[in-house]
Amino acid sequence: MQDMLRNIAALIDEKDGFTVITHVSPDGDALGSSFALYGALLQLGKRAQVVCEDEVPRAYRFLPWAEAVLTPENALQTEYVISVDCADRQRLGSAVRLFDGAQDTVNIDHHGTNIGFAAHNAVAPKAAAAGEMIAALLAMLPVRVDESIATCLYTAIMTDTGNFAYNNTKPETLRCAAALLAAGADNTDIYRRIYAAVPYRKQKLMGCALSNMTLFAEGKIALTYLHLADYERYGAESADSDGVVERLRDIEGVEIAVFIREQAENVYKVSMRSKIAADVSRVAAELGGGGHKHAAGGTVHGTATETQAKTVALCESALKEVWKEL
Amino acid sequence: MQDMLRNIAALIDEKDGFTVITHVSPDGDALGSSFALYGALLQLGKRAQVVCEDEVPRAYRFLPWAEAVLTPENALQTEYVISVDCADRQRLGSAVRLFDGAQDTVNIDHHGTNIGFAAHNAVAPKAAAAGEMIAALLAMLPVRVDESIATCLYTAIMTDTGNFAYNNTKPETLRCAAALLAAGADNTDIYRRIYAAVPYRKQKLMGCALSNMTLFAEGKIALTYLHLADYERYGAESADSDGVVERLRDIEGVEIAVFIREQAENVYKVSMRSKIAADVSRVAAELGGGGHKHAAGGTVHGTATETQAKTVALCESALKEVWKEL
Repeated sequence: MQDMLRNIAALIDEKDGFTVITHVSPDGDALGSSFALYGALLQLGKRAQVVCEDEVPRAYRFLPWAEAVLTPENALQTEYVISVDCADRQRLGSAVRLFDGAQDTVNIDHHGTNIGFAAHNAVAPKAAAAGEMIAALLAMLPVRVDESIATCLYTAIMTDTGNFAYNNTKPETLRCAAALLAAGADNTDIYRRIYAAVPYRKQKLMGCALSNMTLFAEGKIALTYLHLADYERYGAESADSDGVVERLRDIEGVEIAVFIREQAENVYKVSMRSKIAADVSRVAAELGGGGHKHAAGGTVHGTATETQAKTVALCESALKEVWKEL
Repeated sequence: MQDMLRNIAALIDEKDGFTVITHVSPDGDALGSSFALYGALLQLGKRAQVVCEDEVPRAYRFLPWAEAVLTPENALQTEYVISVDCADRQRLGSAVRLFDGAQDTVNIDHHGTNIGFAAHNAVAPKAAAAGEMIAALLAMLPVRVDESIATCLYTAIMTDTGNFAYNNTKPETLRCAAALLAAGADNTDIYRRIYAAVPYRKQKLMGCALSNMTLFAEGKIALTYLHLADYERYGAESADSDGVVERLRDIEGVEIAVFIREQAENVYKVSMRSKIAADVSRVAAELGGGGHKHAAGGTVHGTATETQAKTVALCESALKEVWKEL
């Protein structure tokens, strides 16, 4: 990684006129990494812009330079374009036009599937986040990692490691995070802004869902439901029950989690998660829906009781499939 | 901290026959720190035992040496006693008898309120966890921090920093955690065991707590409570409501979170967390308890209604203090 980055550092040092592009549906690593690089370019006195096809999600608008992001339509063509955290060209969205129009291109990414689609490529699958690579890159340049840059990079690393809980977290990752704290990143503030600003109505809805929860199949199925009246009581919308089904899945011994949400009279949305072996996409298919093995859903027309009975029966069959295979 | 620990390291190196005591209602730092120290003493060939008045909560039973913990009744009197993570003598519970019977005593702790109640005291309020102090202590001894010791210390630091989200997390804290990963601690496994294998009864209790939750002071105080009957209904113990107060603190706009737990008839344990500026240790002091600015607690004798009214009034004063200072 060091050698690949050294060439890119030399290019940045020598040239001028850069566009930093990150991927569509940007996450904390995409935004934190590209903002940190953009801030560093400005600090070096370079002409630069940062581009993303999609809007910055609300949770990340506290990041320094979040307001500087341009859409591809509003961006100028520059000689040099740097793609950050993009596994392939498609991830650039319509900003790929700027990439293709550049004189020279750079690709900085940590996805193992990245084939190196630019003229200069730094692809480090062992890096927990693109932010870890940008931190290494900036260390090769006459850039002072100030509080703003440190905040962006800490956010990048924190979000891509699930707050240091995923197994991509390496000793180097924590050492990098330590250096960013020392440079002025405020871990508590960043954590709070991203993970700890849950609306009250959402917590009340969670309380209701957990209170309604029951177990089936000797504790292997956890099921809960919320009625339209529950949402109305707390002034909540359907997005406020995001996370309910994952909370059920994280229960000891549970293999399938089911969350049934009333959408309209006698219309129920069924969301399912499986922990290890069960395939809930098969259950979803039976309900006229779809999804993946570990996350799927469908819709049932009928009463609440009918919906629950039907779903539990299908989930029990899915569990029997697993037992047969084992 | 280094000087205080060096004396203790010398004592450990020279002497033999140690009892490591940690506090009643032990948490991840109490257990992880004392187990790591106990494991290190055994590795040094010392005669040693580890003592706690209360049982190891289920979530921490995966820790190396968890099965070695003795109750004060089953422990032998030794010449040397080391108190770990105990802010005062009371936190030793009935194990204080062993402490008082010792020829020489050691107190290793990171609570600011610790007055130094032993013959040899290492009190480092800047340490995020007692585990950070034990790591520094072991570095002064001919101890190899193996996977077992690293697992205990990582657990100690992870839990006392709220998985590195609290502002007690310093660059040194992350560097210490990095070294523990390098020594073999498995961050994903430890995280999953403590945070993502939640007992069903614990989630039901959380549902009950969130349903009971109300807001005060225009949404700046979130308060909830659990009665002994709630614990009985789900076959839960007091440790099963760990995390309730943090869930309240993580609500948008909440500055102080309060969790009131019935301990016995007309005896309530009050746990508090503050998000940014309020000092809940002052509130705790008024309740005859203690703690830190952002995490503190105390005990109230009275009815549930009296406890709630008293606590809310004190928290409202603490909020006014903040507004005055701003």
